[in-house]
Amino acid sequence: MRQLTIILAALLAALPAIGQQVGDGEPRVVSPELLPGSQVALRTMAPEGATQVMVVADFLLGGRASMVRNPGGWWEYRPSATLPPGLYTYTYEIEGVPTLDPFNAYTVRDIDRVYNYFIIPGEQTKNLTVNDVPHGTVSHPWYPSTSHGSRRLSVYTPPGFEDQSLGDKRWPVLYLLHGLGGDEESWLDLGRAAQILDNMIASGQVEPMIVVMPNGNVSMTAAPGRNSGEVWQQPTVLLPETMDGAFEQEFPALVEWVDAHYPTLPDRGSRAVAGLSMGGFHAMNVSREYPTLFDWVGLFSPATMSRARNPQSPVYQDVDTKLDTQMNLGPQLYYIACGTADTLVYPEVKAYVDHLAQAGYLYHYLESPGGHTWDNWRLYLQRFLPLLFKEG
Amino acid sequence: MRQLTIILAALLAALPAIGQQVGDGEPRVVSPELLPGSQVALRTMAPEGATQVMVVADFLLGGRASMVRNPGGWWEYRPSATLPPGLYTYTYEIEGVPTLDPFNAYTVRDIDRVYNYFIIPGEQTKNLTVNDVPHGTVSHPWYPSTSHGSRRLSVYTPPGFEDQSLGDKRWPVLYLLHGLGGDEESWLDLGRAAQILDNMIASGQVEPMIVVMPNGNVSMTAAPGRNSGEVWQQPTVLLPETMDGAFEQEFPALVEWVDAHYPTLPDRGSRAVAGLSMGGFHAMNVSREYPTLFDWVGLFSPATMSRARNPQSPVYQDVDTKLDTQMNLGPQLYYIACGTADTLVYPEVKAYVDHLAQAGYLYHYLESPGGHTWDNWRLYLQRFLPLLFKEG
Repeated sequence: MRQLTIILAALLAALPAIGQQVGDGEPRVVSPELLPGSQVALRTMAPEGATQVMVVADFLLGGRASMVRNPGGWWEYRPSATLPPGLYTYTYEIEGVPTLDPFNAYTVRDIDRVYNYFIIPGEQTKNLTVNDVPHGTVSHPWYPSTSHGSRRLSVYTPPGFEDQSLGDKRWPVLYLLHGLGGDEESWLDLGRAAQILDNMIASGQVEPMIVVMPNGNVSMTAAPGRNSGEVWQQPTVLLPETMDGAFEQEFPALVEWVDAHYPTLPDRGSRAVAGLSMGGFHAMNVSREYPTLFDWVGLFSPATMSRARNPQSPVYQDVDTKLDTQMNLGPQLYYIACGTADTLVYPEVKAYVDHLAQAGYLYHYLESPGGHTWDNWRLYLQRFLPLLFKEG
Repeated sequence: MRQLTIILAALLAALPAIGQQVGDGEPRVVSPELLPGSQVALRTMAPEGATQVMVVADFLLGGRASMVRNPGGWWEYRPSATLPPGLYTYTYEIEGVPTLDPFNAYTVRDIDRVYNYFIIPGEQTKNLTVNDVPHGTVSHPWYPSTSHGSRRLSVYTPPGFEDQSLGDKRWPVLYLLHGLGGDEESWLDLGRAAQILDNMIASGQVEPMIVVMPNGNVSMTAAPGRNSGEVWQQPTVLLPETMDGAFEQEFPALVEWVDAHYPTLPDRGSRAVAGLSMGGFHAMNVSREYPTLFDWVGLFSPATMSRARNPQSPVYQDVDTKLDTQMNLGPQLYYIACGTADTLVYPEVKAYVDHLAQAGYLYHYLESPGGHTWDNWRLYLQRFLPLLFKEG
């Protein structure tokens, strides 16, 4: 931070900042800059003599594109076609070295990588931005797990919660689970869950609810920087102690803790569980293993039984019998969604849906274009939430 | 995220990840690796043919050092001398291009830049790590400001808050303010405030308290990604609408909102305000302008009156008279701390302390080595907290 101090001192003395042309009416380098017509300009600086400066982004065919050197010394990229509204992530590569956009403080971590992002506003992203609507509160309590010590949660409580929590008002609860390598912050960061809830509650489409986002990566107690023990323990998709049944068996104790510490409606009809990828696997298993806990189930691009890492776990035994018990109890919603280009899980999801159909069980199934992506998981959440906690 | 999907798919198929040697017992690249004797190894990959790979870090004399290429293709740096325990930030520079450590997911943003960090554990950092003690809850409610719309707060509630909040228990409140360019997340991220509070409450040194961290950058409603309006609005030290008196005039409404929504002890003797740099300026002005609000005041490396950007604000009038009123009311603590190498504010802090001394006011003054740094602000917070809310 010493360097920062020097920069701060310089700025306070009204000198131009390094890399930013702020003096004398000259434009400073701005990136990203949203332009009329859903266009965007991405800019960066590169060392003198650099020849290959690239954007690496999820909106580019082939994943990357060259930037063009500006006579002012900085580099720029503008897409050749209009970008549809969306949340886009990107990084740069300068002479083959990956780097972030130095002018964009909007970053998001996905597992172990940090990306820049921007949002092209439009109908498709109206629920992703922070709009002029009442905001719920995101909090991070710790709960005493029975098997893996004190663990950090993310909890969304709806607008008005602080005003009403001293009264008799009680809320339904959605348990929302992340994917492999994620943590209790994933749905809040790339998932934009708090914004989606704020906006859809404000528009009246979604019932006000409490949303509990636990950490399903049992080898860490919390996201990086908040986890106990060695501060250099890195998140990874090679999670130890995961998909081995332990997280599922922990779940009733978590539900009990939430019901004891929040003004919930503590019954099956007011309780939902949903997750993406590994979280879909967890939601499938938890709702089947404890069929009286959840009346509303959402599996977004779920991994299915074949992914279990410890097939000996009691949670993974007699699954057909347990599924039959669950389905005969008649969950009000058993919702599955998957992208048709999701090469990771689409075939197994199709097989699972076929299995449900052949057994005559009731379910909702949504197919969307696209793959195993946050674009799809944000979409599924927006489709799933309005169905919850409503008379059938 | 498309690339990530491919990597995920590859990993699930048990192939080695790009840049990580995970197969067949080969060691994967680990960075940072803490070694015996408070040593650390930092590692990264660089393109074939790279010649200049540097660490840029706050613990290096001159701020940077060369890394050495390993025959395995990755680059490494080890400090030549043992590092004292501390929280250290760093980035890399490859052929002059700044970049993050691709193996370290521990990042922290300071204003508009992202850094990697690690902690060398020891006596000096025992309050900075997440230890096996009860944890408080960090939450992010929004409050309706009277002048700048709905604004996001960070609030720390002490361990046991959820268990006890339905009873009659009430807590004292510290308002903790960030510096120029910071936001409501700064004290939680680089400040490690939640960890410091958890650990010092657990050891009995600090009274359990609620800590409210507002956003003093009034031109944004919240930290990047959580702020309303244009999602590409960047944080900057060139804050508009700041140090112009508006934030200070807003303060009584914030205190009123907190007292109405949390089980606080709503009296002067149970209320403290402290801040760093610009936050010290705010704490100085707020406590002087509203002398019956706060009985405990902390100014950490504070900017002083000469920094006011709108000297016409009523808050900045008659300051000597107002200070005399405040001091005659006898705050239980008026605490000032500054680094002797703080070229940014040390001279003006000294002048302010001299002014207090000449007027015969009671104050605590701490000088430490070092400059305008988070090392010092974390230290001052740990010195200040044990003094709060105790009989004089």
